[in-house]
Amino acid sequence: MSTPGAKPPAAPAGQRFVREIPEGDDRPRLICGDCGFVQYENPMVVVGSVATWQERILLCRRAIPPRKGLWTLPAGYLELHESAADGALREAWEEARARLRIDQLLAVYSIPRLSQIQLIYRAQLLSADVAAGPETAELALFAWDDIPWDEIAFPSVHWALGHFQEVRGQATFAPRTNPPGAFGDLPDDSTRRD
Amino acid sequence: MSTPGAKPPAAPAGQRFVREIPEGDDRPRLICGDCGFVQYENPMVVVGSVATWQERILLCRRAIPPRKGLWTLPAGYLELHESAADGALREAWEEARARLRIDQLLAVYSIPRLSQIQLIYRAQLLSADVAAGPETAELALFAWDDIPWDEIAFPSVHWALGHFQEVRGQATFAPRTNPPGAFGDLPDDSTRRD
Repeated sequence: MSTPGAKPPAAPAGQRFVREIPEGDDRPRLICGDCGFVQYENPMVVVGSVATWQERILLCRRAIPPRKGLWTLPAGYLELHESAADGALREAWEEARARLRIDQLLAVYSIPRLSQIQLIYRAQLLSADVAAGPETAELALFAWDDIPWDEIAFPSVHWALGHFQEVRGQATFAPRTNPPGAFGDLPDDSTRRD
Repeated sequence: MSTPGAKPPAAPAGQRFVREIPEGDDRPRLICGDCGFVQYENPMVVVGSVATWQERILLCRRAIPPRKGLWTLPAGYLELHESAADGALREAWEEARARLRIDQLLAVYSIPRLSQIQLIYRAQLLSADVAAGPETAELALFAWDDIPWDEIAFPSVHWALGHFQEVRGQATFAPRTNPPGAFGDLPDDSTRRD
């Protein structure tokens, strides 16, 4: 995933923003002390895929922080004016030069600490002709038994792989959500440091 | 839905923002001409539900623009640090003082013009004791044949009701997406005017 550890936009540096409850609202917002503009802060949408070629799963070794050197799924932030599925296709292209056919929504994960909603699709590669994009150090198509479980970048990548395996062979299923009690925190909090 | 016609945050008035491609990026962003701060603009997440009480569907008549006076589902923008399901529960409470049990994800709609991703759940009301919140003029529990189809606020409400009916009685289904070729535009573009 391109920058899942990044925080939502904060107040521009040097600007006189204050955090107050606007009239008629029920929670504090960032408000410009000069012009009264309300800077709403919103959750971020991450779109990605568990994409396969002949039963092998495409993973990308991250070339950038956070979690540089670890393996992740092709995924990243949805852009303005983009559908969720189109965003997942774009991320697969940007990170792995991969062309996909999206099958169905595998999971919706919520990472409240990062204010992230992740939409992860099950997809098939249209060819095995893939190549690392600028944010990717290396690509591989892993058979299930060869997945480098100790070198996975994010908890939600673990979840998505597990859920992919759980619904393997099912043509129709309800999308999965966070495992019970799991919120996507990293044990060493390294998404905050990098 | 609370404010689905609202646009994502724009540059604060009176601030020297310019639209340029930051170094290492591939698309224009809003950049402060004074301090270089990059103001990322991101899609908004709308969360909501098709909630029933004894086969009757909860709809809310909007007390506020856009589409004031028309019927909608309890739905609105996801807040920071909130899971998608929690957001749908909160919106049902805010707009209809309704307590729900979420069943499963009914649909993921993308409204590219508004940069919106809508996550609509199938849910059951825990009681028929509902009451209009501040953004709601009136509430009703409609039997399918009594739904006021000519007074529905947004295309995606039409879609969600249709998809709800399509999967009625199904315990497991894949979430629906936009109908083919439909992007959620209103014929009279009234979300922009109000």
